[in-house]
Amino acid sequence: MTFIRNRWYVAAWDGEVSSEPLARTICGEPLVLYRKLAGDVVALRDACPHRLLPLSMGLREGDNLRCTYHGLLVGPDGKPREMPIVHERVNDKVCTPAYAVVERHRFVWVWIGDQWRADPGLVPDFWPCSREGWVFDGGYSYVKCDYRLFVDNLMDLTHETYVHMGSIGQAELMQAPLETAVDGDRVTLSRWMPAVSPPPFWRQALKRDCTVDRWQICSFIEPCSVLIDVGVSPVEAGDTLERHDSGVRGFVIDSMTPETETTCHYFWGMARNFEIDDAGLTARLRAGQDRIFGEDVEILERQQLSIAANPDMALRVLSIDSGGAHARRVIERLMKQDA
Amino acid sequence: MTFIRNRWYVAAWDGEVSSEPLARTICGEPLVLYRKLAGDVVALRDACPHRLLPLSMGLREGDNLRCTYHGLLVGPDGKPREMPIVHERVNDKVCTPAYAVVERHRFVWVWIGDQWRADPGLVPDFWPCSREGWVFDGGYSYVKCDYRLFVDNLMDLTHETYVHMGSIGQAELMQAPLETAVDGDRVTLSRWMPAVSPPPFWRQALKRDCTVDRWQICSFIEPCSVLIDVGVSPVEAGDTLERHDSGVRGFVIDSMTPETETTCHYFWGMARNFEIDDAGLTARLRAGQDRIFGEDVEILERQQLSIAANPDMALRVLSIDSGGAHARRVIERLMKQDA
Amino acid sequence: MTFIRNRWYVAAWDGEVSSEPLARTICGEPLVLYRKLAGDVVALRDACPHRLLPLSMGLREGDNLRCTYHGLLVGPDGKPREMPIVHERVNDKVCTPAYAVVERHRFVWVWIGDQWRADPGLVPDFWPCSREGWVFDGGYSYVKCDYRLFVDNLMDLTHETYVHMGSIGQAELMQAPLETAVDGDRVTLSRWMPAVSPPPFWRQALKRDCTVDRWQICSFIEPCSVLIDVGVSPVEAGDTLERHDSGVRGFVIDSMTPETETTCHYFWGMARNFEIDDAGLTARLRAGQDRIFGEDVEILERQQLSIAANPDMALRVLSIDSGGAHARRVIERLMKQDA
Repeated sequence: MTFIRNRWYVAAWDGEVSSEPLARTICGEPLVLYRKLAGDVVALRDACPHRLLPLSMGLREGDNLRCTYHGLLVGPDGKPREMPIVHERVNDKVCTPAYAVVERHRFVWVWIGDQWRADPGLVPDFWPCSREGWVFDGGYSYVKCDYRLFVDNLMDLTHETYVHMGSIGQAELMQAPLETAVDGDRVTLSRWMPAVSPPPFWRQALKRDCTVDRWQICSFIEPCSVLIDVGVSPVEAGDTLERHDSGVRGFVIDSMTPETETTCHYFWGMARNFEIDDAGLTARLRAGQDRIFGEDVEILERQQLSIAANPDMALRVLSIDSGGAHARRVIERLMKQDA
Repeated sequence: MTFIRNRWYVAAWDGEVSSEPLARTICGEPLVLYRKLAGDVVALRDACPHRLLPLSMGLREGDNLRCTYHGLLVGPDGKPREMPIVHERVNDKVCTPAYAVVERHRFVWVWIGDQWRADPGLVPDFWPCSREGWVFDGGYSYVKCDYRLFVDNLMDLTHETYVHMGSIGQAELMQAPLETAVDGDRVTLSRWMPAVSPPPFWRQALKRDCTVDRWQICSFIEPCSVLIDVGVSPVEAGDTLERHDSGVRGFVIDSMTPETETTCHYFWGMARNFEIDDAGLTARLRAGQDRIFGEDVEILERQQLSIAANPDMALRVLSIDSGGAHARRVIERLMKQDA
Repeated sequence: MTFIRNRWYVAAWDGEVSSEPLARTICGEPLVLYRKLAGDVVALRDACPHRLLPLSMGLREGDNLRCTYHGLLVGPDGKPREMPIVHERVNDKVCTPAYAVVERHRFVWVWIGDQWRADPGLVPDFWPCSREGWVFDGGYSYVKCDYRLFVDNLMDLTHETYVHMGSIGQAELMQAPLETAVDGDRVTLSRWMPAVSPPPFWRQALKRDCTVDRWQICSFIEPCSVLIDVGVSPVEAGDTLERHDSGVRGFVIDSMTPETETTCHYFWGMARNFEIDDAGLTARLRAGQDRIFGEDVEILERQQLSIAANPDMALRVLSIDSGGAHARRVIERLMKQDA
């Protein structure tokens, strides 16, 4: 096993789930997701408890799904509402696993593992995705790699120079000193660049031409997310690494939910606190991320294949990998606690 | 192993086998089938006894097959007639397994397992497929599921309501009481509907408009066939479940020969004792079955995948599954005897 | 393991390797091949020693390859020249395996196994491919079979009658007596046809119409090559099996480098000592071989599948297979020595 079971995982964007059943495998478990008439999301194992036909092939009836093999009607709690033959006694033991669901920060989260442990308070705090004064949008990619390779990738921004050579790679960023901090299960990688000239994107966002403090702060949030806090603020505001809201700020949001040991669902996006009503900017940022993350996906899928093809070689940890290495250590420790 | 080895299995329709070699894997064993000049069918392991090139790539020479690698000539008994070099001594030990074959009831049957046990008397009695006064035709489908899922499917007609919603599903059928009977290795599922109004198809077949007795009798015939006796007879004829030849009668014929543990060859058709010279009706029935069975195939292949994807869930046996459950018990017991 | 590790293997034609990295797996090990500025060939494991991204995705910088993930610069010895962050101390332990390379007889040879044992003196002597007065050309095919099936095929020319029925099959060849000789690790299969009339191809090559001695001599050269010496010389020259250079002579060159246990790289060609400046003849011979070897490839790939599908059947060794059987015995013995 390469992932922690008893956790909330992003299963879908809010907009992906409708009244029509959506099939998606999370941590090796086939799920079907759909919205009740009232709008809240249901997550069930995608198998009829009778003969295991996927419920995602089923028919909606009210808030239930009717299996199209023998007609067993499954409720949103996974329990049967009607048996294959009408008037047959409903047997609650013939049920399919139901999963706790929370819809928050634009995502649908499901709890994998023991359902009695599903505490909504444990949903990771992606506050920039839902806070007043911020706007958030993004996309989804299916990636054929171990989600941990993606965590490695995001917890190290030196790869930008090569992987994103044609897009966002910037040599000057590499010069700034990098701080790694581990605080419990949270791993943070910080770059604080005091009194620098802002690059074009940030100058435009700030709507002022002045010397700024600039930051890039990557946070690994277990089990499988990385949030990257980026922005600039006028140097005279005196912002700090701990508190920096005087200028313009964004968060690159990345959540890599394991599908299997070697594939993952990649939910990505950008939250920002400037020009929040500019739908055109939102669309451009989304398109830009789509292109840039596509560059990462190509690298990661090739890396996954190469790891399998070179079983005698190990991944080496250099100084630039300390963020990812710390994150893997957190995952390792939590997997042990989980088991 | 999920199938009984020492049994006769349908390997092909009579019309599928000609002088040209036909390759088909039965119960995990690659076979080549062809007809001798005199017309009788030969079944050999599809591998030259010399270097294992498929004999189905070979050339017919008289009743023999010549391997197109080195030219070894194999007779219909699997023994060499000529070695790769002409004048080399023929060595009977360099032979390929030959299989007992019986052509009966429009099918080519092969005996898998110990050949000395191949008693033609053990070929299942598909009498409606070959009896005078009856006509029989059908088709072939390759299906990616365990043949036992198909037996389950056929030994339970409640699925018609949902799977065949758009075609033959009929709610009123579901109301009729169902009798399950086990007699040795034969499992029978019977519905007797006394004094009912015949549905359009049967009224037309009967050529009379009168009250009828109607029946549906599914029989599992080991190792892997289901025959479904259907029809109506005028109520005044006094037909019974045991004897009902006063009206019009048909048999839906299904034989699901295992190819591997998760794939099977599906031979299906319809035999009937009315309008037997109406080739148009024969063609229409065939086309209808092709369409209807295609609906089953889609369900069964998805079910097979779902079973593999949900290893922690088991197939549940409800009352409607008793026919299939009894059939599986027969298969289980015979596999043990066989081993 | 089905191949000898400590050996020189053909990895590519000389013309296949350029300054651009070429990825090719040899004996299960992914390699990247490229030429230095000075022209000599480098072979490295195709994985960056840092995070294992294929180096064949890298960028050439001088004689080095820069990984396009984090920018580690790998030298032709597999050692790092620059670490992902400039000014970081170069750590020689973070290196990728480098392979000894020899370019000889138009091929690029790599040594698989322990590199300290890579003696260039052990490269097989394909002298007709590089000797003055000879010309050599050929091609490459990727074949989905165990390389030993290909050795079997080439060490037995009786298959020509059937496999090459439409092309080079000649019944009269089959009549000539065949001598098998084993001398250490070399297996030789010889046909000497004294005082025969030359077939059209050789008559034209000889430019004379006279009675000739004709020969076909197949040599298995471990670990995986077969060279076939063919030609004719005027009978009055008194040539012998040991020495026959009075007429026209060619070598069919075949080297089947294992990729995996069930796939191989097939390097084939023809060397000759007549009309050596006739580029049109060279092209026609190449096109002819391409077509003829395509017939073998079809057979061999089907044979490989059939061997897997018939695990209860074994390859039989008849008299015609003695060449291949001896070659396999040599391989078997050398694999044991190697281990």
